[in-house]
Amino acid sequence: MSPARSHADSLVPPEAVLQRLAAEEHTTSDALRELLLDGRATVLGSHARVGQIRACVVGAGLRTKVNANFGTSALSSDLVGELHKLDVAIEAGADAVMDLSTGGDIRAVRGAVLARASVPVGTVPVYEAAVQAAGRSGGPTAMTLDSLIAAVRNHAEQGVDFQTVHASITRSQLSSGAVERRRTGIVSRGGALLACWMRAHDAENPYYERFDEVLDICRGYGVTLSLGDSMRPGCLADAGDEAQMTEVAVLGGLVQRARDAGVRVIVEGPGHVPLHEVAAQVTAIKRACHGVPLYVLGPLVTDVAPGYDHITSAIGGTLAAMSGADFLCYVTRAEHVRLPNADDVREGVIACRIAAHAGDVAAGLPGAREWDEAMATARKALDWPGQFALAIDPTLPAEMRAHSDAGDAAECTMCGPLCSMRVTSSEVLA
Amino acid sequence: MSPARSHADSLVPPEAVLQRLAAEEHTTSDALRELLLDGRATVLGSHARVGQIRACVVGAGLRTKVNANFGTSALSSDLVGELHKLDVAIEAGADAVMDLSTGGDIRAVRGAVLARASVPVGTVPVYEAAVQAAGRSGGPTAMTLDSLIAAVRNHAEQGVDFQTVHASITRSQLSSGAVERRRTGIVSRGGALLACWMRAHDAENPYYERFDEVLDICRGYGVTLSLGDSMRPGCLADAGDEAQMTEVAVLGGLVQRARDAGVRVIVEGPGHVPLHEVAAQVTAIKRACHGVPLYVLGPLVTDVAPGYDHITSAIGGTLAAMSGADFLCYVTRAEHVRLPNADDVREGVIACRIAAHAGDVAAGLPGAREWDEAMATARKALDWPGQFALAIDPTLPAEMRAHSDAGDAAECTMCGPLCSMRVTSSEVLA
Repeated sequence: MSPARSHADSLVPPEAVLQRLAAEEHTTSDALRELLLDGRATVLGSHARVGQIRACVVGAGLRTKVNANFGTSALSSDLVGELHKLDVAIEAGADAVMDLSTGGDIRAVRGAVLARASVPVGTVPVYEAAVQAAGRSGGPTAMTLDSLIAAVRNHAEQGVDFQTVHASITRSQLSSGAVERRRTGIVSRGGALLACWMRAHDAENPYYERFDEVLDICRGYGVTLSLGDSMRPGCLADAGDEAQMTEVAVLGGLVQRARDAGVRVIVEGPGHVPLHEVAAQVTAIKRACHGVPLYVLGPLVTDVAPGYDHITSAIGGTLAAMSGADFLCYVTRAEHVRLPNADDVREGVIACRIAAHAGDVAAGLPGAREWDEAMATARKALDWPGQFALAIDPTLPAEMRAHSDAGDAAECTMCGPLCSMRVTSSEVLA
Repeated sequence: MSPARSHADSLVPPEAVLQRLAAEEHTTSDALRELLLDGRATVLGSHARVGQIRACVVGAGLRTKVNANFGTSALSSDLVGELHKLDVAIEAGADAVMDLSTGGDIRAVRGAVLARASVPVGTVPVYEAAVQAAGRSGGPTAMTLDSLIAAVRNHAEQGVDFQTVHASITRSQLSSGAVERRRTGIVSRGGALLACWMRAHDAENPYYERFDEVLDICRGYGVTLSLGDSMRPGCLADAGDEAQMTEVAVLGGLVQRARDAGVRVIVEGPGHVPLHEVAAQVTAIKRACHGVPLYVLGPLVTDVAPGYDHITSAIGGTLAAMSGADFLCYVTRAEHVRLPNADDVREGVIACRIAAHAGDVAAGLPGAREWDEAMATARKALDWPGQFALAIDPTLPAEMRAHSDAGDAAECTMCGPLCSMRVTSSEVLA
């Protein structure tokens, strides 16, 4: 029996969940089970929550999924506000969310999020160790080795569905000088915290050194391990550089160890990448990481548009999804500027869903184009309720039309009676 | 002497303008002159206006330019409001604008726009013939043959810099059944008007039949002829179909005739196109049209996102610009829903500029990446005034930060003291 088969209980969800997921993905439960055992697809949904929530599956040939981040920060901490963002994200169609809280009582925030979220919830345990160190009036260098591992266990015990662990930033990588040769260094928050600690203590990355403990925890609780990319490029100039590619090779090895241990695993990817390198990055990372489901942040195709990074990331995300990325993390217009508000969250989810769907269309995913075809038919018929019902955001276009001067007109106020749909219709020609 | 050289006076702007344009494009006036004579680049700026306005040039190896549409419609006609949109578009960075007015006294609107616009102004003369027919209580079938040609002359006399003429929709094309086999038929407003007229009168397209008259007018006034694509796909299902490709072949022939006549010419392109077909469309159209500057509307990579088509078009526009499109027409979030308002115009221009720049970066345009590199340096330094000054929209991110809880903090409210830029800086490590 292969290692994967011996770990089927860890990798494959209960039969009822498997059947629902297979139906949603237009495949069979047998085919989906094979993907899960091969590690080319991964379920998001811990043992504690998989039967209670809308668990989802990310991977090869499946619909591209969308994640929305939210969470408190030291400069902006408001539990009610963050729970509202959670609701907004789910209502806008996020398939999963990540609670990235670093301000206030983050354990309590996480508990409230888990109690409320109907979709898989992800977290980044190193933030907890850093916040604890700050509470003891220390910087990241005051994190303790045990607190880093304990955070993973604590999150797992609380029921978190997926965790980002930055296990692939290593001591040899840091001493190579590759980071110093970058324009923006390390922009992954978790990666930066660990690099700071490793340099101060002249020590190896605890998550790398004690990776087997991390794997044991994840397998035990059915947590999906999301291997964070500490060397994610933070600007176009750093995309695909030595620092990033060194880490990709390490990630490949960690993926293999996770699979051998029967742990559900996905890998995180860039970041800021010029459009002509997006397909190459996705292909290269998936290849080096043995076809693991790839979870990308963007990619953002230019650095110059703060205030509009929901757009720069939707551009890169579409090409990434077309090229094989399986899971898109949204980027809001607040990225690089401030914590997103609820409006930013809503708009960010929609922009990311546009990228995911347009990527699925371009990749030829079965069933994807039918949606566009139904919309085209409704548009040709000037069937406004039909167009709104089919819209990726049914609310906004309906409000826009209601507040225009269209009144009872069959057309919209753009063209009025010169509407091409009307001009070419048989009534006008008759 | 080649036909192009004999028409150098029509194709090449006055020396002072040529030198300014060459400097802006990081090239020499000799090299730019060759591009203009070859027809691979085209100046937008009529004889009457080229020395008075910020004329621009579109074409191979040059910065991708951005156009913004505005204009009255029968359901929404407000001169002051449309002139405000003009100002907003130019302030947001549009390289050119098109006045697509179809409501109210459109000749007066056009005159006001030409008096005010500091960038090239384009129009679509067939709309004038249709509006005149409507004024005589007729539908598009009541347009007269002479009014169609007169509209081109009237616009040229007023000083319009570029005109869209739908000369490539032909009688044989309409009788082929290809339009009926489409899901959304003809979505080009000008194309739909002409098709309606041609069918009702069982006659050839006047702009096709009397193309030499159109060319004479354009050459005489230094108008750039923008050959409209009447068969632009209006949904993914129609992209690249028989109707579109038949027209592309006709467009290639018309480009050749325009060049032989010494007329500045560009060609319009799609439209709704799935992402995996965008590069192929751009390559195919430019090849069939002898390397003519290509002016695309989008392309929109999915049909399902009314209310967000500034995003769906930025996605396709970036890949189009990377693949050789030279001039992007913006699409606002109001597309398919209502006439855009000033906010939609502003946001649409920014989204389109993002696409143009990200496409130029991906295409390796000399000088394009320096902008991103400067932003990355400012971002790493947490230099907020520097980031805002470099931003494609300097206003919005500054306002977003000012209205956040950042106060005097060095970081933003997303990460606060856990900011990766700070954590990895030497002060923290020290």
